[in-house]
Amino acid sequence: MQGIRDREQETMKDIIVQKYGGTSVGDVDKIKKVARRVASYSRKGYKVVVVVSALGGTTDELIKLADQINKNPSEREMDMLLSTGEQVSVSLLAMALHKLGVDAISFTGAQVGIRTDSSHTKARIVDIGTSRIKEKLKKGSVVIVAGFQGVSGDQEITTLGRGGSDMTAVALAKVLKARECEIYTDVKGVYTADPRLVKNARKLESISYEEMLELASLGAQVMQARSIEVAGKYNVPIHVRASFCKEKGTMISKEVRSMEDVLVRGVTANKKEAKVTVCDVPDKPGEASKLFERLAEARINVDMIIQNISRTRKTDISFTVPTSDLAKTQEVVRKVNKEIGAKGAKYDRDIAKISVVGIGMRSHSGVAAKMFKALAARKINIEMISTSEIKISCVIHRTDADKAIKALHDSFGLGKKTLSRKKRAVRS
Amino acid sequence: MQGIRDREQETMKDIIVQKYGGTSVGDVDKIKKVARRVASYSRKGYKVVVVVSALGGTTDELIKLADQINKNPSEREMDMLLSTGEQVSVSLLAMALHKLGVDAISFTGAQVGIRTDSSHTKARIVDIGTSRIKEKLKKGSVVIVAGFQGVSGDQEITTLGRGGSDMTAVALAKVLKARECEIYTDVKGVYTADPRLVKNARKLESISYEEMLELASLGAQVMQARSIEVAGKYNVPIHVRASFCKEKGTMISKEVRSMEDVLVRGVTANKKEAKVTVCDVPDKPGEASKLFERLAEARINVDMIIQNISRTRKTDISFTVPTSDLAKTQEVVRKVNKEIGAKGAKYDRDIAKISVVGIGMRSHSGVAAKMFKALAARKINIEMISTSEIKISCVIHRTDADKAIKALHDSFGLGKKTLSRKKRAVRS
Repeated sequence: MQGIRDREQETMKDIIVQKYGGTSVGDVDKIKKVARRVASYSRKGYKVVVVVSALGGTTDELIKLADQINKNPSEREMDMLLSTGEQVSVSLLAMALHKLGVDAISFTGAQVGIRTDSSHTKARIVDIGTSRIKEKLKKGSVVIVAGFQGVSGDQEITTLGRGGSDMTAVALAKVLKARECEIYTDVKGVYTADPRLVKNARKLESISYEEMLELASLGAQVMQARSIEVAGKYNVPIHVRASFCKEKGTMISKEVRSMEDVLVRGVTANKKEAKVTVCDVPDKPGEASKLFERLAEARINVDMIIQNISRTRKTDISFTVPTSDLAKTQEVVRKVNKEIGAKGAKYDRDIAKISVVGIGMRSHSGVAAKMFKALAARKINIEMISTSEIKISCVIHRTDADKAIKALHDSFGLGKKTLSRKKRAVRS
Repeated sequence: MQGIRDREQETMKDIIVQKYGGTSVGDVDKIKKVARRVASYSRKGYKVVVVVSALGGTTDELIKLADQINKNPSEREMDMLLSTGEQVSVSLLAMALHKLGVDAISFTGAQVGIRTDSSHTKARIVDIGTSRIKEKLKKGSVVIVAGFQGVSGDQEITTLGRGGSDMTAVALAKVLKARECEIYTDVKGVYTADPRLVKNARKLESISYEEMLELASLGAQVMQARSIEVAGKYNVPIHVRASFCKEKGTMISKEVRSMEDVLVRGVTANKKEAKVTVCDVPDKPGEASKLFERLAEARINVDMIIQNISRTRKTDISFTVPTSDLAKTQEVVRKVNKEIGAKGAKYDRDIAKISVVGIGMRSHSGVAAKMFKALAARKINIEMISTSEIKISCVIHRTDADKAIKALHDSFGLGKKTLSRKKRAVRS
């Protein structure tokens, strides 16, 4: 028995999972390009499992169709509808690989046994059957799996929520013990700051799951946050890289000692939140909790919460919510204020949350001071502050956001190193 | 046990299966219309099982996409691709029914257990699980099933070939013992002749499976021929009718005695065939068979075959093939001619096959004579003749086809009865 198991380990050790997002398979030509990249790995001897999203734009089109029919569609039927998008792209990619002479086979989530719970539109993977994939890989086939979808215990088609294809890829990499899970996207990797904004932003060679998680949830939209969490939990090595470029991207992996040498890994801005201040809340136990209970019931995702010690019997509470939830928030706040006797509320859409993230700051003090000093030097006013072990976030006026990001990127020395005179000479 | 079974029979006796083709669900408004019709049946207390095709045009778009990627796509992957079309339409119809307050649930072929063999793109249904459908029907749900698709023993998605949704509907009606299988289409029923051509063509109230089968395969494109065959085999009552009209259509059912009173049920023309004549074939046993063997190997569907007694040692053989197969046919004929030493071949694209069909002609002679006489009176030359028990077909020049159909329709008295003077007065 032991011998058989060992041999299986042997055969399977060079499995690579590659995930291509919707923009990577946006049209026929791009599908052909992706096929060429997959083929090159297959020819090198890797056993390739490919996870594909729906063709760019397809999901939105289907949502629009549903919306024309029923503004409040059943989540079960939405999953039926949307899961077709990935089924189209996997079959087309298989055909493109066949055209290149590569053996390939496509599977839906159900066919490959991606079992989920039955929470339609936001299902969680509970188990993945690997026998069918392994059998095909052994025969030398590229296995193409529809991302974003699974099947519940009672044979219902489920989907995993926005960014769910990342989760499919990470989960497959985990159960297949893949050597790497490559996430192909339209950027070359994870940067110290948004490269469209900060000219000398540097692509990171590596980053820890924790740091990436903070950056993902803070608005660096490279990968779905939940997938990074799961990858971290099971220690699945992630490689974020560009679909149409051979350059290496950024490795996301477990924290290694050398990571601590870097105080701050990156800076990021979130311009999609609004600030709410509820004024003169009676400073009695339970009053604030009522507010946040009601917000939670309304499924509003509250991010930062600030309450200062009050000098009177009343206090002001500030918090941030996604701008898209602001209308709903105002409604909830109006009701709660009557209930608890608060005076009123102020709303500010023109904020930005800027954050610095780095595992190094765990063991080094002074990061916050440096951040505040850098902002003060540019006369940028800080409205709210919130910190975690590896992150410091400040809410500032939205018009100051770009200036602040550049300032912090400079202050923490995150930019590309200036080339030495000699190297420059060689280059030119 | 007996008691339980009886009760089940009782509950299920009012099942109606309705099939809506692609033109019936061509856009959002049409889907809403179909939903209203389904809802009206459900509210009357019927247990409704709906089979839906892909939204009009979708299948062609998907085929075009595949063609841009691989001119010769794998049939398995084509099934993966094309089956998404029906999955989209069933989920949208479910949403439309929910909007009307009707309980409904959609299923893929796989979910409902439409088991097929593994002949991709032309699979045959081997079994259908009914427990899931019955359970939902009992709860008062409308059950919507994706047409055209099934699942093979090894969980592969299969499709049933062109017109396959008809087969899904008929097969479901059979296993559910439905009282009726309604086939909704863009015509009001089966006519004595093409109503676009023959002004006084009459909609038939009823027709036998056999007659309909002849008419279907002869070009009256109301329903897939294989589905009619199966409906006949299991005696499933079919009702062909228009999607957006309340009028009753045509019932297809077992032959009843009264049907014999009608000599000819309808006349039909097929303008999609071409005639091939292979000249001077050596009149030795086996030479002709070689020709048709090679044609079969090339998957060319030969329809009529005519060979006259030869007065010399050579003979001419004529046959018809679909015009779309003519190029392939020419290739085969060239090769075979060399092999058997035939002289050459003539090809004629400008033919039409006109046919009269009726169970009545079984027991009445003289139909052929009447047909030939009617054609002769219009100076229409007959090039080939072929007969079956309930059908007579003649190949004529294509430009004569419309004239011939009108002539035969008149001769056999198939048109609408002229209204009496009194009725006319009431009407005007």
